[in-house]
Amino acid sequence: MVPRKTTTRARLITTAAELFRRQGYAQTGVNQIIQEASATSGSFYHFFPAKEDLLLAVVDHLADVFTVEIFDAAAMNSDDPISEVFSVLGLYRQQLEHGGLTFCSPMASLSAEVSEIHPEVRTRLAEVFAAWTGRIEEMLRNAGGRLPPSLDRSALAQLVVCTMEGAVLGTRLNRNLAPFDAAMNQLRTYFDLLEDRMGAAAVATAGRPTPVSSPQTADWRSW
Amino acid sequence: MVPRKTTTRARLITTAAELFRRQGYAQTGVNQIIQEASATSGSFYHFFPAKEDLLLAVVDHLADVFTVEIFDAAAMNSDDPISEVFSVLGLYRQQLEHGGLTFCSPMASLSAEVSEIHPEVRTRLAEVFAAWTGRIEEMLRNAGGRLPPSLDRSALAQLVVCTMEGAVLGTRLNRNLAPFDAAMNQLRTYFDLLEDRMGAAAVATAGRPTPVSSPQTADWRSW
Repeated sequence: MVPRKTTTRARLITTAAELFRRQGYAQTGVNQIIQEASATSGSFYHFFPAKEDLLLAVVDHLADVFTVEIFDAAAMNSDDPISEVFSVLGLYRQQLEHGGLTFCSPMASLSAEVSEIHPEVRTRLAEVFAAWTGRIEEMLRNAGGRLPPSLDRSALAQLVVCTMEGAVLGTRLNRNLAPFDAAMNQLRTYFDLLEDRMGAAAVATAGRPTPVSSPQTADWRSW
Repeated sequence: MVPRKTTTRARLITTAAELFRRQGYAQTGVNQIIQEASATSGSFYHFFPAKEDLLLAVVDHLADVFTVEIFDAAAMNSDDPISEVFSVLGLYRQQLEHGGLTFCSPMASLSAEVSEIHPEVRTRLAEVFAAWTGRIEEMLRNAGGRLPPSLDRSALAQLVVCTMEGAVLGTRLNRNLAPFDAAMNQLRTYFDLLEDRMGAAAVATAGRPTPVSSPQTADWRSW
């Protein structure tokens, strides 16, 4: 039976998402969630027979928010597929900034805390990971001839998502965006070199000299 | 007062490290640690007045193990600084494999679980992060003219560590090494392009044609 999506259910989910983020899953009791969501234990157990059911709903909720606020927003903001990749990363950076740098990747945190204990949650998180890499891979495919034909676009998509998740860790530990920006700047340089290679191939065909650029100085967000 | 390093103290630390890894910090009780380490509560509280003191000792212990088993081993295995970077990543991959793919980055897990609650632990984890990036940066500096002079070696070191940590997450969620290998293969391609750029610059000076390579097919571990 699929539970009806009522206001109480939504409130329980968003309250739990925030508490899990702040305190962790294990440290958050059902009673606290019920209290802070102004719900009753009757309604809680109606929607979520077990705490793990709520956790799965939280993962779905966070994945939905991420899809709308990051991926869909990036698609609307960008005219070309490579800038869309960096728009995703830029929007993610904004979330880090707005979260006062204590923002953590809910995927990384929940994965660390519950993926060994709750295999179903791990599977769901792996699906989210696959969805993100799938969307990035689609952008890279849409980039067509701007990237080398032999480039493994699936692998590059995985690099992008892995770097993003790892950079969040660095930023969180250091309480500043420097590690995130450093990693993204390097990712930008890698894309520049891949594009240069295609440019150089075209130029070599035309017999003109190879252009010299200094992508290392590029501000990755300005792309 | 610095506690004496006795066998009991070491046993408490390694037992706690393993339990934190398997169950998380919050879920692991002091009594379980004492019992599994065959210690007494008297000796526990002698060495660790609070559970957080043990946690800090565990972080130090894991950092030491990582230094010896990954960084020092890579330095011994490698003749040149760029292969040393990939040797670090290869040794990290071995740890993932030996851990039955449930291996997680202790740094990432502890960060996710305790860095908001225990600022001292977060600071210590940030120091470990800085130590790792520092060692990678040193390798990149030692690579000298093989990499472009304008390359931000500190930023590239951060990319390497961030990618490594993010790739562990992908591997852990998916229970296979494909995300780790995909990300590392792309990192390898990036290094190849950076080196090609230096090679092309030398070749351009000599007036010879630009070499064509297909780094995407390289097995990053064979480097």
